[in-house]
Amino acid sequence: MIVVMRADASAEDVAGVVARLERQGLSAHVSEGEERTIIGVLGSPIDHAELGPALEAMGGVDRTVRVSKPYKLASRQFQPVNTIIDVRGVKIGGPEVVMIAGPCSVESQEQVLRIAEAVAAVGARLFRAGAYKPRTSPYAFRGHGEAALDMLVKVREQTGLPIVTEVMAPGDVGVVGQATDVFQIGARNMQNYPLLEEVGRTEIPVLLKRGPSATIEEWLLAAEYIMAQGNKQVMLCERGIRTFETATRNTFDINAVAFAKKETHLPVIGDPSHGTGVRSLVGPVGLGAIAAGADGLIVECHHDPDKSWSDAAQALGLDTFRELMAQSQAVSRAIGRTMAGAPVA
Amino acid sequence: MIVVMRADASAEDVAGVVARLERQGLSAHVSEGEERTIIGVLGSPIDHAELGPALEAMGGVDRTVRVSKPYKLASRQFQPVNTIIDVRGVKIGGPEVVMIAGPCSVESQEQVLRIAEAVAAVGARLFRAGAYKPRTSPYAFRGHGEAALDMLVKVREQTGLPIVTEVMAPGDVGVVGQATDVFQIGARNMQNYPLLEEVGRTEIPVLLKRGPSATIEEWLLAAEYIMAQGNKQVMLCERGIRTFETATRNTFDINAVAFAKKETHLPVIGDPSHGTGVRSLVGPVGLGAIAAGADGLIVECHHDPDKSWSDAAQALGLDTFRELMAQSQAVSRAIGRTMAGAPVA
Amino acid sequence: MIVVMRADASAEDVAGVVARLERQGLSAHVSEGEERTIIGVLGSPIDHAELGPALEAMGGVDRTVRVSKPYKLASRQFQPVNTIIDVRGVKIGGPEVVMIAGPCSVESQEQVLRIAEAVAAVGARLFRAGAYKPRTSPYAFRGHGEAALDMLVKVREQTGLPIVTEVMAPGDVGVVGQATDVFQIGARNMQNYPLLEEVGRTEIPVLLKRGPSATIEEWLLAAEYIMAQGNKQVMLCERGIRTFETATRNTFDINAVAFAKKETHLPVIGDPSHGTGVRSLVGPVGLGAIAAGADGLIVECHHDPDKSWSDAAQALGLDTFRELMAQSQAVSRAIGRTMAGAPVA
Amino acid sequence: MIVVMRADASAEDVAGVVARLERQGLSAHVSEGEERTIIGVLGSPIDHAELGPALEAMGGVDRTVRVSKPYKLASRQFQPVNTIIDVRGVKIGGPEVVMIAGPCSVESQEQVLRIAEAVAAVGARLFRAGAYKPRTSPYAFRGHGEAALDMLVKVREQTGLPIVTEVMAPGDVGVVGQATDVFQIGARNMQNYPLLEEVGRTEIPVLLKRGPSATIEEWLLAAEYIMAQGNKQVMLCERGIRTFETATRNTFDINAVAFAKKETHLPVIGDPSHGTGVRSLVGPVGLGAIAAGADGLIVECHHDPDKSWSDAAQALGLDTFRELMAQSQAVSRAIGRTMAGAPVA
Repeated sequence: MIVVMRADASAEDVAGVVARLERQGLSAHVSEGEERTIIGVLGSPIDHAELGPALEAMGGVDRTVRVSKPYKLASRQFQPVNTIIDVRGVKIGGPEVVMIAGPCSVESQEQVLRIAEAVAAVGARLFRAGAYKPRTSPYAFRGHGEAALDMLVKVREQTGLPIVTEVMAPGDVGVVGQATDVFQIGARNMQNYPLLEEVGRTEIPVLLKRGPSATIEEWLLAAEYIMAQGNKQVMLCERGIRTFETATRNTFDINAVAFAKKETHLPVIGDPSHGTGVRSLVGPVGLGAIAAGADGLIVECHHDPDKSWSDAAQALGLDTFRELMAQSQAVSRAIGRTMAGAPVA
Repeated sequence: MIVVMRADASAEDVAGVVARLERQGLSAHVSEGEERTIIGVLGSPIDHAELGPALEAMGGVDRTVRVSKPYKLASRQFQPVNTIIDVRGVKIGGPEVVMIAGPCSVESQEQVLRIAEAVAAVGARLFRAGAYKPRTSPYAFRGHGEAALDMLVKVREQTGLPIVTEVMAPGDVGVVGQATDVFQIGARNMQNYPLLEEVGRTEIPVLLKRGPSATIEEWLLAAEYIMAQGNKQVMLCERGIRTFETATRNTFDINAVAFAKKETHLPVIGDPSHGTGVRSLVGPVGLGAIAAGADGLIVECHHDPDKSWSDAAQALGLDTFRELMAQSQAVSRAIGRTMAGAPVA
Repeated sequence: MIVVMRADASAEDVAGVVARLERQGLSAHVSEGEERTIIGVLGSPIDHAELGPALEAMGGVDRTVRVSKPYKLASRQFQPVNTIIDVRGVKIGGPEVVMIAGPCSVESQEQVLRIAEAVAAVGARLFRAGAYKPRTSPYAFRGHGEAALDMLVKVREQTGLPIVTEVMAPGDVGVVGQATDVFQIGARNMQNYPLLEEVGRTEIPVLLKRGPSATIEEWLLAAEYIMAQGNKQVMLCERGIRTFETATRNTFDINAVAFAKKETHLPVIGDPSHGTGVRSLVGPVGLGAIAAGADGLIVECHHDPDKSWSDAAQALGLDTFRELMAQSQAVSRAIGRTMAGAPVA
Repeated sequence: MIVVMRADASAEDVAGVVARLERQGLSAHVSEGEERTIIGVLGSPIDHAELGPALEAMGGVDRTVRVSKPYKLASRQFQPVNTIIDVRGVKIGGPEVVMIAGPCSVESQEQVLRIAEAVAAVGARLFRAGAYKPRTSPYAFRGHGEAALDMLVKVREQTGLPIVTEVMAPGDVGVVGQATDVFQIGARNMQNYPLLEEVGRTEIPVLLKRGPSATIEEWLLAAEYIMAQGNKQVMLCERGIRTFETATRNTFDINAVAFAKKETHLPVIGDPSHGTGVRSLVGPVGLGAIAAGADGLIVECHHDPDKSWSDAAQALGLDTFRELMAQSQAVSRAIGRTMAGAPVA
């Protein structure tokens, strides 16, 4: 970190900063310029996340400049090669672009089996469906809970598709973990630190959705929370951010997909269903995410989307999903990657 | 709810919507206009929070229009008179404007006692300090936890000030509840539904911070989550929203203060410390919140702000706090309210 | 438009709304429901853009619902087939995806010729460079003006590439129009109505950049301003919106690309240079825009990007540009379109 | 400016940066630290507004840090004492808080006279009304233009109130300037640089509205554009920014009011009418702005707001305006300022 003093800072101001740094076990390298003094901070600033604001509140300090990243384990500086996560044999983060598909929520055993078989037949590699659903309104349907987890286990048994499902509370990590192959951390829980730490203490891969107003840095710090507990198998999922635009439910941040691929070694998944909230935009934006470097997509689909219990406006019908698979394969190949497809397609 | 059909909607489209409504136990009133058909929905739409998007995904539907609010218990339509919350004799939401003050986090017994005595002496009515601190970085100081709760109990015993402190996980509600007089739900947890429900099952008042990217409607729905469990003692706290502006840490949404006072019967508290993140702006923006109708302020202060362990950039020194108390009293009186002050002031 | 009255609206309230509508030459169709009265507005609401807010301010009115679009000429309802704009033989909006390339600003005759020849050689179809540069700071380089226009004319003569350049003031439309083949309206001027109308009175195609905080609807209304004056040759250009994210200069709104293609018949161009502001992200995001349906890209490039006078951080070097052309061709073909390429490539 | 090199930067990288700086007439002070090299830039960076991004695009550069402000004339560093603008004897920026009131647009001579007399009677000091109206839709009412200017002149003659009215195009500055006492630059034109420069060449005070997505820094740079042409009489007007919130039309940025008062010597005016867009919030938010330090308010009012031709939803009736004047006086006094009032009030 660099501390830039004000032009009118006094010698005591400088001494005050130096003393403060030393009190926290850091050392200071004072360099007096023509116009201002600049203080370099030596030591490990990552352990002092709030040092910057604290110093900026001191007399004579103009600003501080962080020169190292606030995250470490998630950074490509720490690990240059891509992390490849193996979920029951499906490799995420490697050359293959992976499709994760399924309905918003588990409605019945028949519904999940029917959808899972249909998406597996055209190349989906993992199955997603919510057993526990976070809802903005306390009066909305919130999922079948444990009963739904059993239905998901049966889906895996019958179709071979590994399961992705959301966990919402630290106390549920045990029970959900017995059923699922990937924990989904929902967007509203991206900064639910007790929850992040709890999944960080397991060995089950985590799909970490970006909060709708989280910066990319905060998203990577949330991954860091999980990784710091020992679980390094984190996939980052961009699912749209909140902006002023109202024509779409969220704004899919394609920049974040490309940026995260450069900055970290973790797999990045695009969620065009929540990222747009509009059925007719899911396909084009999903293809865009693949072209920009996403390692996979997570897409909501339903055998009868108009009868879907939740998020109906964004669920694809199975025919549309099949078309998206074909187009996704074509775009994946155009950028030198592969994608599983329908046996005949 | 009103369903507006497209100009080119067919008779089957209309029949499909009617059937869908009836399947959910609602009834439909079809009115054929010159250009389009409009369908009124009769029944209780509040129990069908996702009905709108589901209908909008159906064939022939142009859009749906909600005519009732998605929240009920929090609404002034449900309860026209102001809720006044009594915290050990301090009444919040009545004619008195109430100051809640204290440091960001509990650092030591001596620190909290010293600050509490100083703020009590000039008119603060409640004491705030964090025992558990949510932090963006896993490497930052996260509070002294239970030991800090004991120090806060001692503060109440010695100064008489009731305590406000944050609870971060459903499993901590019991232990925090034994110490605190008001649960604070932090901004990052505004949509942590298991936590909201857990505090909703207690009888302890809750200070509910608005999430930095939550709409006012989502904030009121979060209050509804708590109230729906039985706990009606909720204070809404505006603490700044996330916008494109970077000169300040957040953008204090003064509109939301005024809007929430019109729309709900719950007390509204302004947090200019987080709402600005800049020490020199805390005072002016806090006075603005009072003038706009806030029932109180929650302000960070410290006897030695430059040595504060966290959020130093926004903590007021005790002299500045004293001035703010005097100015707050003057503004409160200008709009016909009262505010406690220093014995002599 | 539909006017939804409040549950407690009186007969006089309803009569007031009806009278107000009739005063503006519209007629009303009152429908009394069980709980509330709803008033349908007959006539041409597009001529009454502010009728909604005016009605919502009246006694007894709960809200108004617009059922028709606020724009007409730009809408696919008005013209279902794609507009194809012919710029000296280059067709924009048809099956071919078109690359527009060049430096941020005209620095010298030699510079623009050199870059134009290089980009033409690998398949760019139009040349872009600024003669007049809008700058946030009054102290920044603002372009060579008319002298630069002459240099651009020479570029067209020598390379055959049609020219795209920005016009900033209504009074400059004449002089810029004598040189350019496409007027660029910059993001800051998207709602400069006198300027929009002035270019609307010419027959020269217009590339209309979306304002960084303009909604898609406002963007289409800006196109409508131009088209309403007679000039129907408008290309929409998405160049990133302003959000809370700071890791990138803007947030490229890929949703808007896909949405605009569905909603209007106008060509849509993606600008990943401004849309990201980060050189290493220009390629991935540009490919994403093509995959999502953009009819072309506009990309900043420079033969020596580190010496570029402006926007250096986002300009591609010529080698990188060549790679992007090859990848863009591959992605274009993957989605069933064509793209010009290098003779041999 | 400080250039922070990457840890792995080579000696050539450093030499490249030094050469680049020298090419632009600046000199470099290289300081080699233990881990990285830091380069201080000596000279006048304000003349090199885009130097930062250009350097950041160079090999081996990690980031640049601006240490001086990008604006100068607008800064309190340049002029510590408040600018007080004298508009026909009304002093703006001094101890008196000033009310500017009137309808959104000039509808008729009778209308403006009636409203002006009413607001003058209760203490308004300037009269505002639009002759030229920027409108999002090309189909909306856009003002009576020159005829309206004549009506405004008559208002001044009969009531003595100086006039504030908007100018939208550089070519209109002459004709509007003959009528008005203060030019209003509308929010959409905050970065219309030819217009800013044209009013900058007059001696008529300017009320500069902040663009709905302009940062505070961009707003001050827009003021700098005007001041750099010689006209130092600029008032800054906060009128709400665009955020994700939809319950209000804009989000009034009260932080910006307080910040601008600290950072610049220019008067700051609050516009709670556009800042909220909701009639019932105009009063509370206007009082908040005064409490936070605004030097005045600009408020829309109408003798029959439900019949107002534009912006009806936010216009105050005259009775409500009278109440707001009384409350504004009370709050102004509470913070040690004065405000004109009704003779008897």
